[in-house]
Amino acid sequence: MEPPGLRHAFFVSDRTGITAEMLGHSLLAQFEDVQFKETTLPFVDSVERANAAVRQINEAALEDDQRPLVFSTLVDPEVSAVIAGARALYLDCFQVFISPMEQELGVRHSLEIGRSHRVRNTNEYHSRIEAVNFCLAHDDGVSTKELHEADVILVGVSRSGKTPTCLYMGLQYGIRAANYPLIPEDFQDMKLPARLNKYRRKLFGLTITAPRLAHIRNERRPNSRYAQLDNCQYEIDRAEMLMREEGIPFLDATNRSIEELAATIVHQGQLHRQSF
Amino acid sequence: MEPPGLRHAFFVSDRTGITAEMLGHSLLAQFEDVQFKETTLPFVDSVERANAAVRQINEAALEDDQRPLVFSTLVDPEVSAVIAGARALYLDCFQVFISPMEQELGVRHSLEIGRSHRVRNTNEYHSRIEAVNFCLAHDDGVSTKELHEADVILVGVSRSGKTPTCLYMGLQYGIRAANYPLIPEDFQDMKLPARLNKYRRKLFGLTITAPRLAHIRNERRPNSRYAQLDNCQYEIDRAEMLMREEGIPFLDATNRSIEELAATIVHQGQLHRQSF
Repeated sequence: MEPPGLRHAFFVSDRTGITAEMLGHSLLAQFEDVQFKETTLPFVDSVERANAAVRQINEAALEDDQRPLVFSTLVDPEVSAVIAGARALYLDCFQVFISPMEQELGVRHSLEIGRSHRVRNTNEYHSRIEAVNFCLAHDDGVSTKELHEADVILVGVSRSGKTPTCLYMGLQYGIRAANYPLIPEDFQDMKLPARLNKYRRKLFGLTITAPRLAHIRNERRPNSRYAQLDNCQYEIDRAEMLMREEGIPFLDATNRSIEELAATIVHQGQLHRQSF
Repeated sequence: MEPPGLRHAFFVSDRTGITAEMLGHSLLAQFEDVQFKETTLPFVDSVERANAAVRQINEAALEDDQRPLVFSTLVDPEVSAVIAGARALYLDCFQVFISPMEQELGVRHSLEIGRSHRVRNTNEYHSRIEAVNFCLAHDDGVSTKELHEADVILVGVSRSGKTPTCLYMGLQYGIRAANYPLIPEDFQDMKLPARLNKYRRKLFGLTITAPRLAHIRNERRPNSRYAQLDNCQYEIDRAEMLMREEGIPFLDATNRSIEELAATIVHQGQLHRQSF
């Protein structure tokens, strides 16, 4: 069979659409020969809005002359039924699981829209915000005051991806992640920054390949010594050597997404998550 | 039927587990009378690891004397089959959609694990990192230098939730979100900070209820004037009045999660996302 060309895909949700998007996106990623044009339709929480969504889906069907793929996480069966009537392959990522769950649990579900991303648990919400504040206050070694409160401390050369990974751990998991740069001074005597000594067991390293690091640093400080390939290679070699000598586990960030780095560190470090 | 008590639920994935977790968590949230103990088992990418996961699930079944719920996004059918053999209600959130998608698309899927969260597209990845850097450089009005490059500028009183919302928009959507506080000086003459004047169309406001704001501020600066309920109420009233007069759309952050705030702003502001 000939692989088709560009194809529309819609993620339809009664709330943010993040769940439909993530699941749909990873399913689409399984079909690498097909190019998709992805559109999220969030807050489809009434029959009226569902009708508007159907119009948009049907227009795409007309434009492509083939059916779009529609992934939905709609809770309300009435709204879901409207979307199911679109000229599309309708993949229901929600209703399909509710009925076996009801049978197993012996209770009916509560048919409440958007329960997942509401603030159900103020403590959980609060701990995520506090974790983000902690990350910001302990970004790039700016403060070492409350490092004893850190769940994890990321180390690595400048621009190896520590900051976004810390922030993601805070936002997604409510984890207090500090980060501390490894700088040329540390490589001269091949010792960890003295302030980190008491927190060795909290340390986790990030590394990166030299060409990628040089590229990133060049955007920040073009044509600097800091960004030169040989300097990047030197810093990375020394940082990896130091982490190995100190027994600090580390990951290569070059081909890993922020999500993957964060989840791996949480998993390998057996960190205690504050939120789901 | 009697609603059951605490029940184990597992999210099993060959990669980060984030997708399984989000979908499973929102499904579980539909059963508000049941309390769940949620566990993520990420990186289950071999039969050996699947067997270890099955042991853990079966132990939970024994402990509860009832079957756990297992949500999986496993790509490899062999690994999936192992998990399906656990003493649990097995809810496959992946395989179940692949076959209708293959039929519709007329191609086989590529059976590649973890494709979704790999760095498929360096540009996309790069724009997320850049967006986070932008958020950090333009947090709390610290710099107004490159506000013309902002996709959106959040305004609101101190501690109304601007920073985490901006960071989430950067990490999740690759959106360059700056934020700028509204402070008592702005309320005296009821004018926007002068620097924001040329960017009116990029402004989006956050508000919050006074008791919640007082609670948050009290944790930061206990017993301060800043945190007093009447002061919070005054600032909020004036900020809302100012935003209304200036025609700035705004959201109440009190009962909305970070995800919901971010998705709503992207949707209502029709912001152009850089990533899925």
